Amino acid sequence: MGFREHLQEVCRGVDGAFACSLMGMDGIEVDGHVESDGGVDVQSMMVEMTGILRTAREAALAHRAGGLEEFSVGTERLLTIGRLVSPDYFMVVALRPEGNQGKARYLLRIAAPRVAAEL
Amino acid sequence: MGFREHLQEVCRGVDGAFACSLMGMDGIEVDGHVESDGGVDVQSMMVEMTGILRTAREAALAHRAGGLEEFSVGTERLLTIGRLVSPDYFMVVALRPEGNQGKARYLLRIAAPRVAAEL
Repeated sequence: MGFREHLQEVCRGVDGAFACSLMGMDGIEVDGHVESDGGVDVQSMMVEMTGILRTAREAALAHRAGGLEEFSVGTERLLTIGRLVSPDYFMVVALRPEGNQGKARYLLRIAAPRVAAEL
Repeated sequence: MGFREHLQEVCRGVDGAFACSLMGMDGIEVDGHVESDGGVDVQSMMVEMTGILRTAREAALAHRAGGLEEFSVGTERLLTIGRLVSPDYFMVVALRPEGNQGKARYLLRIAAPRVAAEL
């Protein structure tokens, strides 16, 4: 099973999800699956997430909170949920605000080690 | 009911929560309630959240995702969940990683307009 299939599986398994990507911490997408753009510039938002993630990771380490594991950012038109796959890569799924956040977090938790095994 | 009582109510209503603050977007705490420090430098983490929030807000607006509403950052020892109360203030609750994230998000959603009414 390739990266794309894992990303598709997460995206299709979550009500309201419209895109899922595997991103490098350098902001470059390794692979991605987009069902629709949801009226939002999803690709650019996912790149921006990388900067936010890097800041959060540094803050967490500086303040003895341990390694970063997951994050989410919810706006009026988009809910973005991500999970670290390795120190250098993370998976991120974009949902409509009313999407199933619990299921997204669950499927990311299941998929992360499977994707990590293929990195 | 003052700010402190709202913060206490959120903190005490969520399994695993150990601190709740009302923060300005300038990184200065308006008021806070701390049950325990959870072994983490919580106050500093909450200040760092402000920088992360500002970045997320700018990114969301730039990419047509609308106004920022909520966010979370999960690390090995800390789950931080926040919600905008107004354009200049946000509430943030710190939980142990196994804490009840759904309840925290729910109580923040209920408390935010009440706190906003007192700002």
